[in-house]
Amino acid sequence: MENISVLQLGKNAKAVETILAAASPKAKNDALAAIADALIARTDEILAANAKDLEAAQANHMSKAMQDRLLLTPQRIAGIADGVRKLISLDEVVGKVEEGFVRPNGLRIQKTRVPLGVIGIIFESRPNVTVDAATLCLKAGNCVILRGGKEAFSSNVCLTNVMREALAASGLPADAVQLVMDPTRESANALMKLSGYLDVLIPRGGAGLIRVVVENATVPVIETGTGNCHVYVDASADLAMAVDIINNGKTQRPSVCNAVESVLIHRDVAAVLLPMLKAKLDEHSVVLHGCEGTAAILGECVIPADDADYATEYLDYQLAVKLVDSLDEAMAHIKQYGTRHSECIVTRSLENAERFQREVDAAAVYVNASTRFTDGGEFGFGAEIGISTQKLHARGPMGLAELTTVKYLINGSGQIR
Amino acid sequence: MENISVLQLGKNAKAVETILAAASPKAKNDALAAIADALIARTDEILAANAKDLEAAQANHMSKAMQDRLLLTPQRIAGIADGVRKLISLDEVVGKVEEGFVRPNGLRIQKTRVPLGVIGIIFESRPNVTVDAATLCLKAGNCVILRGGKEAFSSNVCLTNVMREALAASGLPADAVQLVMDPTRESANALMKLSGYLDVLIPRGGAGLIRVVVENATVPVIETGTGNCHVYVDASADLAMAVDIINNGKTQRPSVCNAVESVLIHRDVAAVLLPMLKAKLDEHSVVLHGCEGTAAILGECVIPADDADYATEYLDYQLAVKLVDSLDEAMAHIKQYGTRHSECIVTRSLENAERFQREVDAAAVYVNASTRFTDGGEFGFGAEIGISTQKLHARGPMGLAELTTVKYLINGSGQIR
Repeated sequence: MENISVLQLGKNAKAVETILAAASPKAKNDALAAIADALIARTDEILAANAKDLEAAQANHMSKAMQDRLLLTPQRIAGIADGVRKLISLDEVVGKVEEGFVRPNGLRIQKTRVPLGVIGIIFESRPNVTVDAATLCLKAGNCVILRGGKEAFSSNVCLTNVMREALAASGLPADAVQLVMDPTRESANALMKLSGYLDVLIPRGGAGLIRVVVENATVPVIETGTGNCHVYVDASADLAMAVDIINNGKTQRPSVCNAVESVLIHRDVAAVLLPMLKAKLDEHSVVLHGCEGTAAILGECVIPADDADYATEYLDYQLAVKLVDSLDEAMAHIKQYGTRHSECIVTRSLENAERFQREVDAAAVYVNASTRFTDGGEFGFGAEIGISTQKLHARGPMGLAELTTVKYLINGSGQIR
Repeated sequence: MENISVLQLGKNAKAVETILAAASPKAKNDALAAIADALIARTDEILAANAKDLEAAQANHMSKAMQDRLLLTPQRIAGIADGVRKLISLDEVVGKVEEGFVRPNGLRIQKTRVPLGVIGIIFESRPNVTVDAATLCLKAGNCVILRGGKEAFSSNVCLTNVMREALAASGLPADAVQLVMDPTRESANALMKLSGYLDVLIPRGGAGLIRVVVENATVPVIETGTGNCHVYVDASADLAMAVDIINNGKTQRPSVCNAVESVLIHRDVAAVLLPMLKAKLDEHSVVLHGCEGTAAILGECVIPADDADYATEYLDYQLAVKLVDSLDEAMAHIKQYGTRHSECIVTRSLENAERFQREVDAAAVYVNASTRFTDGGEFGFGAEIGISTQKLHARGPMGLAELTTVKYLINGSGQIR
């Protein structure tokens, strides 16, 4: 792609959005198959582009973990292509009739799903997001403008060209997928203010990126992914189950947004539960930040916890622990510190389970299961563009339906008021 | 209500939102009944407050039309109370299960409707909105912060107190309904920036108000109501039907957002249709702004139309008319000038009807019916807080469901990943 302004990208996308919106399921699926095939056929070219990014990363002393996120391999490219092929088998969402009814005057009204139009994605240095996000937008009939991090720029250019050429070869407009060719703060800001051209902007990345986008955007934004998730262990809980759920939420993949960051334990069961929990978490050397009651039971291995701990998304092998006197105290704590992502109660009490699910305000509220299940794949959506932690439009894992809006189709025979 | 800061109103609302969200259908309906009864019982007090606003309006030489919008009468108050009673019979929306499924691991997942939380409404000088909007928010389990126009301030204070006292008497928190006691530009701005306290802000009023809110708000906004609506008369149309639909759209209530502002006529039927249309519209002395082709047929009664006419929401007995050569030209015109509200094709062609409904991007796309039906009442929603012309969250008439969000409830028996 040439280096053209963000405004021009918006104009290019708007010029073809109607074609994408009207594209048949077969046309879109053929294009997705062409993209998957091209990713495999052009693996060497993609790896060569990726090598340039890695070389720059090494020269800039990027951390090994970050370099690994940037790295593409033949296996990883095959995995990306597989992800694209999986989209083909998902049910078509455009045109789905959500509701249909006939009014007393004979008007037939159908509420149908239609694409949003043009979607902007701002993301950091994972080149797989370039393809994952673009193809999910395409499957839902949208155009996409991608603005990836500068660390993955060479990879992103190559991947975008592969997708654009595959689109064109399969008869859909190449401008359905565009990349911002100037990965600077200025271009990110321009995208945030591209009113009239972007129907929604989705930031994918860390809390810092998301905050900047939410605070600065004039286009509609869907906020994703900050998760300060809690497990509350009720006095009636199955304590072995509580240990498993906390351990899974904390240690199975600590860097993700649905990992557990704080545990609230009813004081009546703390003396029994805490030693069991510590023994399990010690297998992963989890550091505990606890209240006075926790320290009184577990001793000096507990680092004293303060407000900052309860507000922290550690994304690491660290866990805050607080003893509480009641379900009400637990829910008040969650209301104060939670980020409305995923919250869990472990209990045998029907009354407490129902109160927790009714009164806790979050995208996903669990009874007796790990918060790690808040995920499009685990929910059975087949694909996911992120997890919304806002209340408007989409909440929780966002699949294809969340990349669409609705349109009312009204058919009459001359009705007037 | 005391004169407290907008921030404090936000804190007050957040302090009671959980109570409203968990309130039973009966508790909410009892409160609505108490409000309706109090509006009738305290009619004299409300009229006295309204008289102060009218006195000020007269002193400020407010137009008669505006004074009429401000005026309350015993009949109008009874009408407002009736509107509140109608809400009681609507189905409860909070807790409605939108989807429910079981995953292979046994997790049971339910996507349920929950209140948004705290809703802000900014509106102009119609005191009936104070009650209509507040009670619709309450029925959906939300708290509401009202910021009405200064012209209706005395009426709004009285109506808000009536509602707050009825709420308290029926056992729900008075702070579920609050009024900004300082109807200045500063308080409107503060409301637009009340992040963390307002879950959504809905402006109700003219295009100017809505633009200011959309441009300045940092809280989520639902844009309502700008409607530059078109009727396209296809070459195959039933011309008598076309005349009825255009006449209804233009003259039945010209000041509303779903009124017709521009007519696009296929050139092949213009010579027959235009004289029929003009004869009908002359009954309401509708002024025509037309293209050259229109003027060539109707003569000098046609005012030459320019781009500004096609972009104008007249909200009056004025209509823009343009001849087109094809459905494609009509759809391109609608894409350029439309506001994505309501668009209509009059046709006998199945192919053209389907293309128009598929390709025109608007909240409501009609075949052979008046655009005046884009309305919560006409759609059978029972009540309406406005008509969304944006794509995120809600599109078209917004009823109770659009004043809610969803929450996933997940029930397991110890599942972990």
